[in-house]
Amino acid sequence: MSDRDTRHKASMQKLKARVDEKVANATEQRGLIIVNTGNGKGKTTAAWGTVTRALGYGYRVGVVQFIKGLWECGERNRLEDDPNLDIAIMATGFTWDTQNRAADTQACKEVWEDAARMLADPEVYLVVLDEITYMLKFGYLDIDTVREALKNRPREQTVIVTGRNAHRDIVAMADTVTDMQEVRHAFSDGIQARRGIDF
Amino acid sequence: MSDRDTRHKASMQKLKARVDEKVANATEQRGLIIVNTGNGKGKTTAAWGTVTRALGYGYRVGVVQFIKGLWECGERNRLEDDPNLDIAIMATGFTWDTQNRAADTQACKEVWEDAARMLADPEVYLVVLDEITYMLKFGYLDIDTVREALKNRPREQTVIVTGRNAHRDIVAMADTVTDMQEVRHAFSDGIQARRGIDF
Repeated sequence: MSDRDTRHKASMQKLKARVDEKVANATEQRGLIIVNTGNGKGKTTAAWGTVTRALGYGYRVGVVQFIKGLWECGERNRLEDDPNLDIAIMATGFTWDTQNRAADTQACKEVWEDAARMLADPEVYLVVLDEITYMLKFGYLDIDTVREALKNRPREQTVIVTGRNAHRDIVAMADTVTDMQEVRHAFSDGIQARRGIDF
Repeated sequence: MSDRDTRHKASMQKLKARVDEKVANATEQRGLIIVNTGNGKGKTTAAWGTVTRALGYGYRVGVVQFIKGLWECGERNRLEDDPNLDIAIMATGFTWDTQNRAADTQACKEVWEDAARMLADPEVYLVVLDEITYMLKFGYLDIDTVREALKNRPREQTVIVTGRNAHRDIVAMADTVTDMQEVRHAFSDGIQARRGIDF
Protein backbone atom coordinates (compact mmCIF):
# COMPACT_ATOMS: atom_id res chain seq x y z
CA MET A 1 0.00 0.00 0.00
CA SER A 2 1.43 3.42 -0.96
CA ASP A 3 2.05 6.13 1.68
CA ARG A 4 -0.84 8.11 0.30
CA ASP A 5 -3.17 5.11 0.52
CA THR A 6 -2.06 4.47 4.11
CA ARG A 7 -2.66 8.09 5.14
CA HIS A 8 -6.06 7.99 3.42
CA LYS A 9 -7.01 4.85 5.36
CA ALA A 10 -5.96 6.35 8.72
CA SER A 11 -7.87 9.55 8.01
CA MET A 12 -10.99 7.60 6.99
CA GLN A 13 -10.80 5.46 10.16
CA LYS A 14 -10.86 8.61 12.28
CA LEU A 15 -13.75 10.01 10.27
CA LYS A 16 -15.65 6.74 10.63
CA ALA A 17 -15.32 6.89 14.42
CA ARG A 18 -16.85 10.39 14.43
CA VAL A 19 -19.68 9.37 12.10
CA ASP A 20 -20.43 6.22 14.11
CA GLU A 21 -20.68 8.26 17.30
CA LYS A 22 -23.16 10.67 15.71
CA VAL A 23 -25.26 7.80 14.37
CA ALA A 24 -25.28 6.12 17.80
CA ASN A 25 -26.43 9.37 19.41
CA ALA A 26 -29.34 9.80 17.00
CA THR A 27 -31.99 7.67 18.65
CA GLU A 28 -35.17 9.73 18.51
CA GLN A 29 -37.72 8.74 15.86
CA ARG A 30 -40.48 11.12 14.82
CA GLY A 31 -41.64 13.36 11.99
CA LEU A 32 -39.73 16.58 11.38
CA ILE A 33 -40.39 20.19 10.56
CA ILE A 34 -38.01 21.11 7.74
CA VAL A 35 -37.59 24.68 6.50
CA ASN A 36 -36.05 25.44 3.09
CA THR A 37 -35.46 29.17 3.03
CA GLY A 38 -33.04 31.75 1.60
CA ASN A 39 -32.78 33.76 -1.60
CA GLY A 40 -31.24 30.99 -3.73
CA LYS A 41 -32.54 28.24 -6.01
CA GLY A 42 -33.57 24.86 -4.64
CA LYS A 43 -36.18 25.48 -1.92
CA THR A 44 -39.20 24.15 -3.80
CA THR A 45 -37.06 21.83 -5.92
CA ALA A 46 -35.69 20.05 -2.84
CA ALA A 47 -39.21 19.76 -1.46
CA TRP A 48 -40.30 17.97 -4.67
CA GLY A 49 -37.21 15.77 -4.42
CA THR A 50 -38.40 14.71 -0.97
CA VAL A 51 -41.92 14.14 -2.31
CA THR A 52 -40.49 11.81 -4.97
CA ARG A 53 -38.43 10.06 -2.28
CA ALA A 54 -41.40 9.49 0.07
CA LEU A 55 -43.61 8.28 -2.80
CA GLY A 56 -40.82 5.82 -3.66
CA TYR A 57 -41.60 3.98 -0.41
CA GLY A 58 -45.36 4.16 -0.92
CA TYR A 59 -45.99 6.82 1.72
CA ARG A 60 -48.92 9.22 1.36
CA VAL A 61 -47.90 12.79 0.56
CA GLY A 62 -49.77 16.10 0.48
CA VAL A 63 -48.49 19.13 -1.42
CA VAL A 64 -50.04 22.57 -1.06
CA GLN A 65 -48.82 25.12 -3.57
CA PHE A 66 -49.41 28.64 -2.36
CA ILE A 67 -49.05 31.31 -5.08
CA LYS A 68 -47.91 28.83 -7.74
CA GLY A 69 -50.16 26.61 -9.77
CA LEU A 70 -50.88 28.72 -12.83
CA TRP A 71 -47.63 27.76 -14.49
CA GLU A 72 -47.01 24.32 -15.81
CA CYS A 73 -44.94 22.30 -13.35
CA GLY A 74 -42.85 19.31 -14.46
CA GLU A 75 -42.95 17.61 -11.07
CA ARG A 76 -46.74 17.79 -11.02
CA ASN A 77 -46.83 16.41 -14.59
CA ARG A 78 -44.61 13.51 -13.59
CA LEU A 79 -46.18 12.58 -10.24
CA GLU A 80 -49.83 13.70 -10.26
CA ASP A 81 -51.14 10.27 -11.29
CA ASP A 82 -49.60 8.72 -8.15
CA PRO A 83 -52.53 7.52 -6.01
CA ASN A 84 -50.57 8.43 -2.87
CA LEU A 85 -50.16 12.08 -3.85
CA ASP A 86 -52.71 14.76 -2.99
CA ILE A 87 -52.06 18.22 -4.47
CA ALA A 88 -53.90 21.43 -3.58
CA ILE A 89 -53.10 24.60 -5.49
CA MET A 90 -53.93 28.21 -4.79
CA ALA A 91 -53.35 29.06 -8.46
CA THR A 92 -53.62 32.81 -8.17
CA GLY A 93 -50.24 33.47 -9.72
CA PHE A 94 -47.66 35.86 -8.37
CA THR A 95 -48.79 38.62 -6.05
CA TRP A 96 -47.25 41.19 -8.40
CA ASP A 97 -49.50 39.93 -11.16
CA THR A 98 -52.76 39.77 -9.23
CA GLN A 99 -52.12 43.02 -7.32
CA ASN A 100 -55.21 42.23 -5.32
CA ARG A 101 -54.79 41.67 -1.59
CA ALA A 102 -58.42 40.91 -0.82
CA ALA A 103 -58.82 38.27 -3.55
CA ASP A 104 -55.43 36.70 -2.74
CA THR A 105 -56.33 36.50 0.94
CA GLN A 106 -59.56 34.72 0.11
CA ALA A 107 -57.82 32.24 -2.22
CA CYS A 108 -55.19 31.61 0.43
CA LYS A 109 -57.76 30.90 3.13
CA GLU A 110 -59.48 28.40 0.84
CA VAL A 111 -56.32 26.43 0.06
CA TRP A 112 -55.32 26.55 3.73
CA GLU A 113 -58.38 24.37 4.43
CA ASP A 114 -56.71 21.65 2.38
CA ALA A 115 -53.45 22.15 4.25
CA ALA A 116 -55.22 21.94 7.62
CA ARG A 117 -56.93 18.70 6.56
CA MET A 118 -53.58 17.13 5.55
CA LEU A 119 -51.87 18.35 8.74
CA ALA A 120 -54.56 16.61 10.81
CA ASP A 121 -54.41 13.29 8.94
CA PRO A 122 -52.16 10.63 10.51
CA GLU A 123 -52.16 8.73 7.19
CA VAL A 124 -50.24 11.57 5.54
CA TYR A 125 -46.50 10.96 6.05
CA LEU A 126 -45.26 14.18 4.41
CA VAL A 127 -46.89 17.57 3.86
CA VAL A 128 -45.26 20.27 1.75
CA LEU A 129 -46.38 23.86 2.38
CA ASP A 130 -44.78 25.39 -0.70
CA GLU A 131 -44.21 29.17 -0.53
CA ILE A 132 -46.37 29.55 2.56
CA THR A 133 -43.81 32.03 3.94
CA TYR A 134 -45.19 34.71 1.61
CA MET A 135 -48.73 34.12 2.88
CA LEU A 136 -47.53 34.91 6.39
CA LYS A 137 -45.43 37.86 5.25
CA PHE A 138 -48.34 39.47 3.40
CA GLY A 139 -50.73 38.71 6.25
CA TYR A 140 -52.97 36.49 4.09
CA LEU A 141 -52.64 33.83 6.75
CA ASP A 142 -52.31 34.12 10.53
CA ILE A 143 -49.11 32.81 12.14
CA ASP A 144 -51.02 31.44 15.16
CA THR A 145 -53.21 29.31 12.91
CA VAL A 146 -50.19 27.83 11.17
CA ARG A 147 -48.24 27.32 14.38
CA GLU A 148 -51.11 25.46 16.07
CA ALA A 149 -51.66 23.21 13.06
CA LEU A 150 -47.93 22.34 12.98
CA LYS A 151 -47.78 21.76 16.73
CA ASN A 152 -50.83 19.49 16.79
CA ARG A 153 -49.96 17.42 13.73
CA PRO A 154 -49.50 13.62 14.00
CA ARG A 155 -46.21 12.64 15.61
CA GLU A 156 -44.91 10.69 12.59
CA GLN A 157 -45.75 13.38 10.06
CA THR A 158 -42.99 15.46 8.45
CA VAL A 159 -43.73 18.95 7.14
CA ILE A 160 -41.59 20.92 4.70
CA VAL A 161 -42.04 24.70 4.63
CA THR A 162 -40.53 26.60 1.69
CA GLY A 163 -40.06 30.25 0.79
CA ARG A 164 -37.87 33.26 1.51
CA ASN A 165 -37.91 35.01 4.87
CA ALA A 166 -39.37 32.17 6.91
CA HIS A 167 -41.25 33.48 9.96
CA ARG A 168 -39.10 33.32 13.13
CA ASP A 169 -41.76 31.26 14.95
CA ILE A 170 -41.65 28.59 12.23
CA VAL A 171 -37.84 28.59 12.28
CA ALA A 172 -37.94 28.22 16.08
CA MET A 173 -40.20 25.15 15.80
CA ALA A 174 -38.17 23.53 13.01
CA ASP A 175 -35.88 20.51 13.38
CA THR A 176 -33.91 21.14 10.19
CA VAL A 177 -33.39 24.55 8.60
CA THR A 178 -31.43 25.14 5.41
CA ASP A 179 -30.60 28.60 4.14
CA MET A 180 -30.24 28.29 0.37
CA GLN A 181 -28.11 31.22 -0.63
CA GLU A 182 -27.69 32.52 -4.15
CA VAL A 183 -24.04 32.69 -5.15
CA ARG A 184 -24.89 33.12 -8.84
CA HIS A 185 -28.12 32.84 -10.83
CA ALA A 186 -28.27 32.30 -14.60
CA PHE A 187 -31.48 34.36 -14.88
CA SER A 188 -29.71 37.46 -13.54
CA ASP A 189 -27.06 36.94 -16.23
CA GLY A 190 -29.70 37.11 -18.97
CA ILE A 191 -30.43 33.40 -19.42
CA GLN A 192 -34.12 32.48 -19.77
CA ALA A 193 -35.90 30.26 -17.27
CA ARG A 194 -35.75 26.79 -18.79
CA ARG A 195 -38.54 24.26 -19.19
CA GLY A 196 -37.85 21.06 -17.25
CA ILE A 197 -35.07 22.75 -15.30
CA ASP A 198 -36.53 25.90 -13.72
CA PHE A 199 -40.22 24.95 -13.85
CA MET B 1 -60.70 49.43 -1.44
CA SER B 2 -59.09 49.82 2.01
CA ASP B 3 -55.92 51.89 2.50
CA ARG B 4 -53.97 48.74 3.11
CA ASP B 5 -55.26 47.17 -0.10
CA THR B 6 -54.39 50.33 -2.05
CA ARG B 7 -50.84 50.39 -0.67
CA HIS B 8 -50.48 46.69 -1.48
CA LYS B 9 -51.58 47.29 -5.07
CA ALA B 10 -49.12 50.17 -5.54
CA SER B 11 -46.27 48.14 -4.08
CA MET B 12 -47.09 45.16 -6.30
CA GLN B 13 -47.22 47.38 -9.40
CA LYS B 14 -43.69 48.59 -8.66
CA LEU B 15 -42.51 45.03 -8.08
CA LYS B 16 -44.13 43.91 -11.34
CA ALA B 17 -42.23 46.56 -13.28
CA ARG B 18 -38.92 45.28 -11.85
CA VAL B 19 -39.81 41.63 -12.57
CA ASP B 20 -40.93 42.44 -16.13
CA GLU B 21 -37.65 44.20 -16.80
CA LYS B 22 -35.62 41.19 -15.61
CA VAL B 23 -37.71 38.82 -17.72
CA ALA B 24 -37.27 41.04 -20.79
CA ASN B 25 -33.51 41.04 -20.25
CA ALA B 26 -33.27 37.25 -20.05
CA THR B 27 -33.08 36.32 -23.72
CA GLU B 28 -30.30 33.71 -23.95
CA GLN B 29 -31.44 30.09 -24.32
CA ARG B 30 -29.07 27.21 -23.58
CA GLY B 31 -28.33 24.45 -21.11
CA LEU B 32 -26.86 25.43 -17.75
CA ILE B 33 -24.24 24.27 -15.31
CA ILE B 34 -25.88 24.28 -11.88
CA VAL B 35 -23.90 23.71 -8.67
CA ASN B 36 -25.64 22.71 -5.42
CA THR B 37 -23.02 23.00 -2.71
CA GLY B 38 -22.68 23.89 0.99
CA ASN B 39 -22.85 21.95 4.27
CA GLY B 40 -26.66 21.89 4.53
CA LYS B 41 -29.44 19.53 3.42
CA GLY B 42 -30.95 19.72 -0.03
CA LYS B 43 -28.10 19.44 -2.54
CA THR B 44 -28.91 15.96 -3.82
CA THR B 45 -32.59 16.33 -2.98
CA ALA B 46 -32.94 19.41 -5.20
CA ALA B 47 -31.11 17.57 -7.99
CA TRP B 48 -33.70 14.76 -7.80
CA GLY B 49 -36.46 17.38 -7.77
CA THR B 50 -35.08 18.69 -11.06
CA VAL B 51 -34.84 15.13 -12.43
CA THR B 52 -38.54 14.64 -11.64
CA ARG B 53 -39.31 17.98 -13.26
CA ALA B 54 -37.43 17.21 -16.49
CA LEU B 55 -38.98 13.73 -16.72
CA GLY B 56 -42.36 15.42 -16.36
CA TYR B 57 -41.86 16.94 -19.81
CA GLY B 58 -40.54 13.71 -21.30
CA TYR B 59 -36.91 14.80 -21.48
CA ARG B 60 -34.12 12.23 -21.23
CA VAL B 61 -32.15 12.39 -17.99
CA GLY B 62 -28.91 10.77 -16.81
CA VAL B 63 -28.03 10.46 -13.11
CA VAL B 64 -24.58 9.39 -11.92
CA GLN B 65 -24.38 8.65 -8.21
CA PHE B 66 -20.80 8.85 -7.00
CA ILE B 67 -20.27 7.31 -3.53
CA LYS B 68 -23.96 6.59 -2.98
CA GLY B 69 -25.85 3.65 -4.35
CA LEU B 70 -25.50 1.07 -1.57
CA TRP B 71 -28.33 2.58 0.43
CA GLU B 72 -31.90 2.31 -0.68
CA CYS B 73 -33.00 5.51 -2.34
CA GLY B 74 -36.67 6.52 -2.54
CA GLU B 75 -36.21 8.66 -5.63
CA ARG B 76 -34.62 5.76 -7.48
CA ASN B 77 -37.46 3.48 -6.34
CA ARG B 78 -40.03 5.94 -7.63
CA LEU B 79 -38.44 6.87 -10.97
CA GLU B 80 -36.20 4.01 -12.10
CA ASP B 81 -38.88 2.47 -14.34
CA ASP B 82 -39.07 5.68 -16.37
CA PRO B 83 -37.79 4.83 -19.87
CA ASN B 84 -36.24 8.30 -20.13
CA LEU B 85 -34.08 7.88 -17.02
CA ASP B 86 -30.59 6.36 -17.11
CA ILE B 87 -28.91 5.81 -13.72
CA ALA B 88 -25.26 4.84 -13.14
CA ILE B 89 -24.10 4.14 -9.60
CA MET B 90 -20.62 3.84 -8.15
CA ALA B 91 -22.08 1.95 -5.18
CA THR B 92 -18.93 1.78 -3.09
CA GLY B 93 -20.54 3.38 -0.04
CA PHE B 94 -19.00 6.16 2.00
CA THR B 95 -15.23 6.66 1.82
CA TRP B 96 -15.06 6.29 5.61
CA ASP B 97 -16.57 2.82 5.27
CA THR B 98 -14.46 1.54 2.39
CA GLN B 99 -11.23 3.12 3.69
CA ASN B 100 -9.62 2.03 0.44
CA ARG B 101 -8.33 4.73 -1.86
CA ALA B 102 -7.12 2.45 -4.63
CA ALA B 103 -10.38 0.51 -4.94
CA ASP B 104 -12.50 3.68 -4.70
CA THR B 105 -10.42 5.34 -7.42
CA GLN B 106 -10.98 2.36 -9.72
CA ALA B 107 -14.75 2.32 -9.04
CA CYS B 108 -14.90 6.05 -9.67
CA LYS B 109 -13.08 5.81 -12.99
CA GLU B 110 -15.51 3.12 -14.12
CA VAL B 111 -18.63 5.12 -13.30
CA TRP B 112 -17.07 8.22 -14.88
CA GLU B 113 -17.21 6.36 -18.22
CA ASP B 114 -21.01 6.45 -17.89
CA ALA B 115 -20.92 10.13 -17.02
CA ALA B 116 -18.68 10.90 -20.01
CA ARG B 117 -21.08 9.04 -22.32
CA MET B 118 -24.08 11.03 -21.01
CA LEU B 119 -22.19 14.33 -21.24
CA ALA B 120 -21.45 13.62 -24.92
CA ASP B 121 -25.02 12.66 -25.86
CA PRO B 122 -27.15 15.49 -27.34
CA GLU B 123 -30.30 13.45 -26.61
CA VAL B 124 -29.68 13.79 -22.86
CA TYR B 125 -31.32 17.00 -21.64
CA LEU B 126 -30.14 16.83 -18.01
CA VAL B 127 -27.16 15.10 -16.38
CA VAL B 128 -26.77 14.92 -12.58
CA LEU B 129 -23.25 14.34 -11.25
CA ASP B 130 -24.25 13.57 -7.68
CA GLU B 131 -21.47 13.99 -5.09
CA ILE B 132 -18.78 14.27 -7.74
CA THR B 133 -17.14 17.04 -5.67
CA TYR B 134 -15.72 14.39 -3.29
CA MET B 135 -14.18 12.49 -6.22
CA LEU B 136 -12.27 15.63 -7.16
CA LYS B 137 -11.35 16.42 -3.56
CA PHE B 138 -9.91 12.95 -2.93
CA GLY B 139 -8.16 12.94 -6.30
CA TYR B 140 -10.12 9.93 -7.58
CA LEU B 141 -10.95 11.95 -10.65
CA ASP B 142 -8.94 14.60 -12.50
CA ILE B 143 -10.35 18.13 -12.65
CA ASP B 144 -9.14 18.63 -16.24
CA THR B 145 -11.10 15.57 -17.40
CA VAL B 146 -14.29 16.85 -15.79
CA ARG B 147 -13.79 20.41 -17.00
CA GLU B 148 -13.27 19.32 -20.61
CA ALA B 149 -16.33 17.08 -20.57
CA LEU B 150 -18.47 19.92 -19.19
CA LYS B 151 -17.07 22.44 -21.67
CA ASN B 152 -17.63 20.20 -24.70
CA ARG B 153 -21.11 19.00 -23.79
CA PRO B 154 -24.09 19.65 -26.13
CA ARG B 155 -25.32 23.25 -25.99
CA GLU B 156 -28.85 22.39 -24.83
CA GLN B 157 -27.72 20.05 -22.05
CA THR B 158 -27.98 21.10 -18.40
CA VAL B 159 -25.65 19.57 -15.80
CA ILE B 160 -26.18 19.60 -12.04
CA VAL B 161 -23.13 19.08 -9.83
CA THR B 162 -23.73 18.32 -6.14
CA GLY B 163 -21.57 18.00 -3.04
CA ARG B 164 -19.71 20.04 -0.46
CA ASN B 165 -16.64 22.08 -1.32
CA ALA B 166 -17.24 22.34 -5.07
CA HIS B 167 -13.96 22.80 -6.96
CA ARG B 168 -13.30 26.46 -7.82
CA ASP B 169 -12.93 25.63 -11.54
CA ILE B 170 -16.43 24.09 -11.60
CA VAL B 171 -17.86 27.06 -9.70
CA ALA B 172 -16.17 29.40 -12.18
CA MET B 173 -17.83 27.59 -15.12
CA ALA B 174 -21.27 27.43 -13.50
CA ASP B 175 -24.30 29.54 -14.47
CA THR B 176 -26.18 29.01 -11.21
CA VAL B 177 -24.55 28.29 -7.85
CA THR B 178 -26.47 27.76 -4.61
CA ASP B 179 -24.75 27.48 -1.26
CA MET B 180 -27.05 25.38 0.93
CA GLN B 181 -26.10 26.28 4.46
CA GLU B 182 -27.05 24.31 7.53
CA VAL B 183 -28.81 26.50 10.07
CA ARG B 184 -30.04 23.50 12.07
CA HIS B 185 -30.03 19.75 11.41
CA ALA B 186 -32.29 17.27 13.21
CA PHE B 187 -29.62 14.55 13.04
CA SER B 188 -27.22 16.66 15.13
CA ASP B 189 -30.02 17.00 17.70
CA GLY B 190 -30.28 13.23 18.07
CA ILE B 191 -33.08 12.50 15.60
CA GLN B 192 -32.55 9.48 13.36
CA ALA B 193 -32.31 9.74 9.59
CA ARG B 194 -35.80 9.01 8.34
CA ARG B 195 -36.90 6.69 5.54
CA GLY B 196 -38.66 8.54 2.76
CA ILE B 197 -37.41 11.87 4.08
CA ASP B 198 -33.62 11.63 4.43
CA PHE B 199 -33.00 8.75 2.03
